[in-house]
Amino acid sequence: MKDTRTFSCWIGLISVILLASSCSREAKIDTPRPTFGIAIHGGAGAISRQSLKPEREAAFRAKLTEAVCTGHRVLQNGGTSIDAVEATIRILEDSPLFNAGKGAVFTSEGTNELDACIMDGRTLKAGAIAGVKHIKNPISLARLVMEKSRHVMMVGEGAEKFAFEQGIELIEQKYFFTQERWDSWQRAREREKQREKRPGTSSSLLEDDLGPDRKFGTVGAVALDKAGNLAAATSTGGTQNKRFGRVGDCPIVGAGTYANNRTCAVSATGTGEYFIRLNVAHDISALMEYGGSTLEQAAGTVIREKLTKLGGDGGIVAIDKNGLIATPFNTSGMWRAHALGQDAKAVVAVF
Amino acid sequence: MKDTRTFSCWIGLISVILLASSCSREAKIDTPRPTFGIAIHGGAGAISRQSLKPEREAAFRAKLTEAVCTGHRVLQNGGTSIDAVEATIRILEDSPLFNAGKGAVFTSEGTNELDACIMDGRTLKAGAIAGVKHIKNPISLARLVMEKSRHVMMVGEGAEKFAFEQGIELIEQKYFFTQERWDSWQRAREREKQREKRPGTSSSLLEDDLGPDRKFGTVGAVALDKAGNLAAATSTGGTQNKRFGRVGDCPIVGAGTYANNRTCAVSATGTGEYFIRLNVAHDISALMEYGGSTLEQAAGTVIREKLTKLGGDGGIVAIDKNGLIATPFNTSGMWRAHALGQDAKAVVAVF
Repeated sequence: MKDTRTFSCWIGLISVILLASSCSREAKIDTPRPTFGIAIHGGAGAISRQSLKPEREAAFRAKLTEAVCTGHRVLQNGGTSIDAVEATIRILEDSPLFNAGKGAVFTSEGTNELDACIMDGRTLKAGAIAGVKHIKNPISLARLVMEKSRHVMMVGEGAEKFAFEQGIELIEQKYFFTQERWDSWQRAREREKQREKRPGTSSSLLEDDLGPDRKFGTVGAVALDKAGNLAAATSTGGTQNKRFGRVGDCPIVGAGTYANNRTCAVSATGTGEYFIRLNVAHDISALMEYGGSTLEQAAGTVIREKLTKLGGDGGIVAIDKNGLIATPFNTSGMWRAHALGQDAKAVVAVF
Repeated sequence: MKDTRTFSCWIGLISVILLASSCSREAKIDTPRPTFGIAIHGGAGAISRQSLKPEREAAFRAKLTEAVCTGHRVLQNGGTSIDAVEATIRILEDSPLFNAGKGAVFTSEGTNELDACIMDGRTLKAGAIAGVKHIKNPISLARLVMEKSRHVMMVGEGAEKFAFEQGIELIEQKYFFTQERWDSWQRAREREKQREKRPGTSSSLLEDDLGPDRKFGTVGAVALDKAGNLAAATSTGGTQNKRFGRVGDCPIVGAGTYANNRTCAVSATGTGEYFIRLNVAHDISALMEYGGSTLEQAAGTVIREKLTKLGGDGGIVAIDKNGLIATPFNTSGMWRAHALGQDAKAVVAVF
């Protein structure tokens, strides 16, 4: 049994190495400074080297590689950054590994409620949805909100009514089900019950309880296309066991998602409330535009200093108008990948 | 009949002048630079001198004076800026004159759906609710979200469930009804029907139709207390005839509402989608913090230049950490008032 597992683990790792070697068939060495590129994340959190099983790591690396290479291919073929981030996020939404689309966490009601946001740095147009329950690919609905409505943000049943009018198929909740998320939710409820028995703790303080393996599986992508246009996209199932129609930072323009051709594109993952209060994504852009910071400096200041000081956890991926990226996080790990420039290699990392 | 109306109009104007003369019983001349103060708005839009009837103007001036003096009294008595903006907004929510609380506009479904947000500049804590239908004073629920939950933003039925758990009485929709808003909505629906008959116009482009008298009756307040702490609050019924669970800028931290002791407190009113895309409130703060702008410069740049260039309408009221205020708008009018410093006079303006 152990031999079989070790064998499958090695197969996984080898396939990842092959996949990760290049988004193109022929990788080149010493490519010039990238004029286009993409960076993505698959969530940040308390990921430990000890608890991360090799086959699970291999699965994450393979899916992130597939996603980043899909977006990179769009860019390399002359496509727009908006198309690139949407195509990338759809792959991550379809994967049960991440807390977005298929595999979203469960709310306190046992439902799956999804949020997404997309923003175009050229026009500053944006589309966001929150609390939808029957949309397979929330990021594509967010894009429709951006392109086919006068509005920026729609929530709940109203957003689904708009989706229906736009010809999007509404799916049943059972599509989002995974045994892993269900079991995790059951454990969270059990912990909640235990704590409710203790005096002095109110149930409203026990929301978004992810337990000891606290990880935010939000997915995000930022891209710069050959025309110099930036875009950002984020999609999430929110926090496990969430109550009260809670909306996190993901669908809030300027908090979890932001793109502006003058500066950068940013997508965030973490304890959303802190990202909202700090306007994390817009703050990074503003530090660059008004404070003269580089992307690296601005992103570092906001995540490592401001977010940490306020008590928030998480990270961001960002790309600036010159194709430079920054991926700071203040948790032990953040799943991330990038592919920059012609015939780029996909680079995947977690710690 | 005409004489009676002229008489009541004069009575109204005289009472306004008496009310507006001072928030305190004894006004002083040459007061020192204000160390505390409050500024409020009651919406911006296409308000024309010709169409504004004297008795209506008198009613607006009287209510804005009452509201700003209430907030000012809290501050003068040593209360916090958070208490001041909440008390002020509650008065405006209770008045049928404004599009918040009683007198909110109707959605495409014939319902009233309310949004509100409050933010504390000292802690950067914030609370926001969107799409609630049974809350008399949404701003007080937003404050409970800020103080009694782990979350920043709650929407729809979830937010009302939280309200119920917190002991807030849920009221029936009929409380919000006013004949004026109902008639206005009927006219908007009629215009919508007329336009639907024309080819080439989709119904989804006809939302938030306020007709020729386009006015945004959102209410907002910003305050600096004697301890040097800033706060901002905004409350609205959103846009008339809105569809699809649309959420505007009011409940979005950094868009319609923002407060930060390092810079300023801002509350906005206008075409919310543009305020979201520009992160109006946070952008003003960032221009001050990183760009070295004064509040006057920062607010002017964002409203008169950026917002106008993007095609958005509206305005903001803001107060900085030194008690200076700015109230720029790019519409023909914005209802606003302020009262700054010890024994301050209430100053009310519209054009």
